Amino acid sequence: MIYLDNSATTKPFPEAIDSFMTVATKYFGNPSSLHELGMKAERLLEQSREQTAFLLGVKPNEIIFTSGGTEANNFAIKGAAIQYRQRGNHIITTMIEHPSVAEPCRQLEQMGFEVTYLPVNEKGIIDIDELARAIREETILVSVMHVNNEVGAIQPIEQIGQLLKQHPKIVFHVDHVQGVTKVPLDLKKAHIDLCTMSAHKFHGLRGAGILYLRNGIRLSPLLAGGGQELQMRSGTENVAAIVAMTKALRLSFAAFEQKAAYLFALKERWIQELAKIADIQLNTPAEHSAPHIINFSLNGLKSEVFVHELEKQHIFVSTTSACSSKKRTPSKTLMAMGVDQQKAESAVRISLSYENKLEEIPVAIHAIQHAIQKLKEVTR
Amino acid sequence: MIYLDNSATTKPFPEAIDSFMTVATKYFGNPSSLHELGMKAERLLEQSREQTAFLLGVKPNEIIFTSGGTEANNFAIKGAAIQYRQRGNHIITTMIEHPSVAEPCRQLEQMGFEVTYLPVNEKGIIDIDELARAIREETILVSVMHVNNEVGAIQPIEQIGQLLKQHPKIVFHVDHVQGVTKVPLDLKKAHIDLCTMSAHKFHGLRGAGILYLRNGIRLSPLLAGGGQELQMRSGTENVAAIVAMTKALRLSFAAFEQKAAYLFALKERWIQELAKIADIQLNTPAEHSAPHIINFSLNGLKSEVFVHELEKQHIFVSTTSACSSKKRTPSKTLMAMGVDQQKAESAVRISLSYENKLEEIPVAIHAIQHAIQKLKEVTR
Ligand SMILES: Cc1ncc(COP(=O)(O)O)c(C=O)c1O
Ligand SMILES: Cc1ncc(COP(=O)(O)O)c(C=O)c1O
Repeated sequence: MIYLDNSATTKPFPEAIDSFMTVATKYFGNPSSLHELGMKAERLLEQSREQTAFLLGVKPNEIIFTSGGTEANNFAIKGAAIQYRQRGNHIITTMIEHPSVAEPCRQLEQMGFEVTYLPVNEKGIIDIDELARAIREETILVSVMHVNNEVGAIQPIEQIGQLLKQHPKIVFHVDHVQGVTKVPLDLKKAHIDLCTMSAHKFHGLRGAGILYLRNGIRLSPLLAGGGQELQMRSGTENVAAIVAMTKALRLSFAAFEQKAAYLFALKERWIQELAKIADIQLNTPAEHSAPHIINFSLNGLKSEVFVHELEKQHIFVSTTSACSSKKRTPSKTLMAMGVDQQKAESAVRISLSYENKLEEIPVAIHAIQHAIQKLKEVTR
Repeated sequence: MIYLDNSATTKPFPEAIDSFMTVATKYFGNPSSLHELGMKAERLLEQSREQTAFLLGVKPNEIIFTSGGTEANNFAIKGAAIQYRQRGNHIITTMIEHPSVAEPCRQLEQMGFEVTYLPVNEKGIIDIDELARAIREETILVSVMHVNNEVGAIQPIEQIGQLLKQHPKIVFHVDHVQGVTKVPLDLKKAHIDLCTMSAHKFHGLRGAGILYLRNGIRLSPLLAGGGQELQMRSGTENVAAIVAMTKALRLSFAAFEQKAAYLFALKERWIQELAKIADIQLNTPAEHSAPHIINFSLNGLKSEVFVHELEKQHIFVSTTSACSSKKRTPSKTLMAMGVDQQKAESAVRISLSYENKLEEIPVAIHAIQHAIQKLKEVTR
């Protein structure tokens, strides 16, 4: 098997699974229970919070554990909008956000908020001057993703943070789900107020995510109730998944520079080899793009059929993002980049992780050539 | 170890852990991915949905998987209120709901909704005539829990359903977290529209819950995004935890009548033995109460110290509910039942599961007597 769909989800690290197992079997107590079994679970939870905070360069009481990226994004967007609605009703985001940011924005529009969706250039990047011009007296929230999940474009988060520093009443949220452990981002230096991460994108297990919530920022809870997670996110804590996520985060950050260099080399090599194939047009921009995502189009061939051709060789790639692949709508990021519809409809995404090997490339490239050949025979 | 805190959380079944492991390691694909690895995960997810629906006597497309009970309650309450806000702004609930129902109601009050909190009698049961009188033209939602988590009182859910049948525009939500697998409830017969369950309360793993959403009812998504879970609950699905939950549900429902009889016998025996201790006053009503929860007061002795005394003997009980135990507020259910404050402050909850044994009773009773003795020496 050659797994090239790591932006959809990653294979959990065996170490993360081991941690999960140990906690789920031995430390199954409810962290809110007063007795020893509860206290042990609580200690594991707080150790995870401290370690996560340390790895991200923030304070433990700025880490809120959620069930995943979608919950953290919904919490950030709707929680900030509801909390600060007296200040104003205007939100700024981009045209290329993940649905877990875009849809909450649409829900808020139905509730009377106004949302500006910033366009991107042909490289998938927003214009910071355009963002500056979009800011109004009533703007309460700016939400911009770090690494785009469909093409890998990296937004200028630090610059946006610098700009927003001059507007202390605007809350700055960053969807860092595809960026964390792949593209460095200093949450403090970038003046980020809210930042979303998801365990299963960095070899942790499903069921855990992180919302960084800067001290001083308040949110209306999305999951209200027993008051867990510093009164911000209620529900019995999924300690096993949180401990496993912390383990995966630590392992991913260990020898980070070396791994990042490896990932970049891997991507370079992939791009060189893909460029040799006549029917392939690269969509991922050469600059300001992440080391793990490569998006290309198949010269009008149907990407869905291509995905199924490749899976016959046990090679797993994606059409666009996982969640829009079944809706058969062309990638909205490519459309926003001005790619024509036919090209967008024949788009394929390869997404790598540190676990991918150089040796996989010739095998996969051969299979890709073979699949293209077959599709062309069928189509023409 | 004698674990008597099963209403806070249960020890996962080994079979549930095995299922989790298998899925997390072998079927880690994203169910939204088009390739084989995604399709396998999706098949497991849909099999779980079918089996869960079958076990609950409902249709597969009426089952929405969530991250747990708190999410399902927040989704039901806020999702229904926002969806149906054009119909009216009045909600009816009770004074003894779990915080994950009560807090969303309070959030809605801040947004302009009106909430009626029905009182309970000395047995912890609401008056159905009072509910009928509380219904107004503007009532859009009634939320009543099945089994109370602090004292085990069972509400007349079927009768409420019969009453609400005459008000087809009112959505009926039931928090069934403490009831499911312990006290039978026929979702269809009781005319329930929305019903909450949580895996870790029936020996599943943290990270999965269920919202039954009757066909015809719509909710504004709490977690909006990629459109998973029939467009109702977005986020990459926690397939491993969902499969494990389904396994736990199936195992719990197997030989249900026999198990329920066992649990009732266990509780009876517990109550007989507790009744012999002079300093113990039972709070759990003899009738209309669940087979797994026994609440009693310690004649003015501090329940928190008592919990810690018992834990020295590796016996784990609870003061009130897990989530209010750390806030040191007296049980709101007991207060609503009219129990005096001192008695409420010395309340202890024992919560059983099918895994508890008759042999544990004499050991635990001895330890309880010993702990009371010690506390009395210290206090007096
Ligand atoms: C950029 C981005 N944001 C948010 C999410 C949602 O994360 P999750 O699957 O944990 O809900 C994803 C992945 O699906 C993503 O790629
Ligand atoms: C009656 C009741 N409802 C809801 C919940 C919340 O469930 P969860 O812990 O899965 O969020 C609980 C338990 O904490 C409960 O006892």
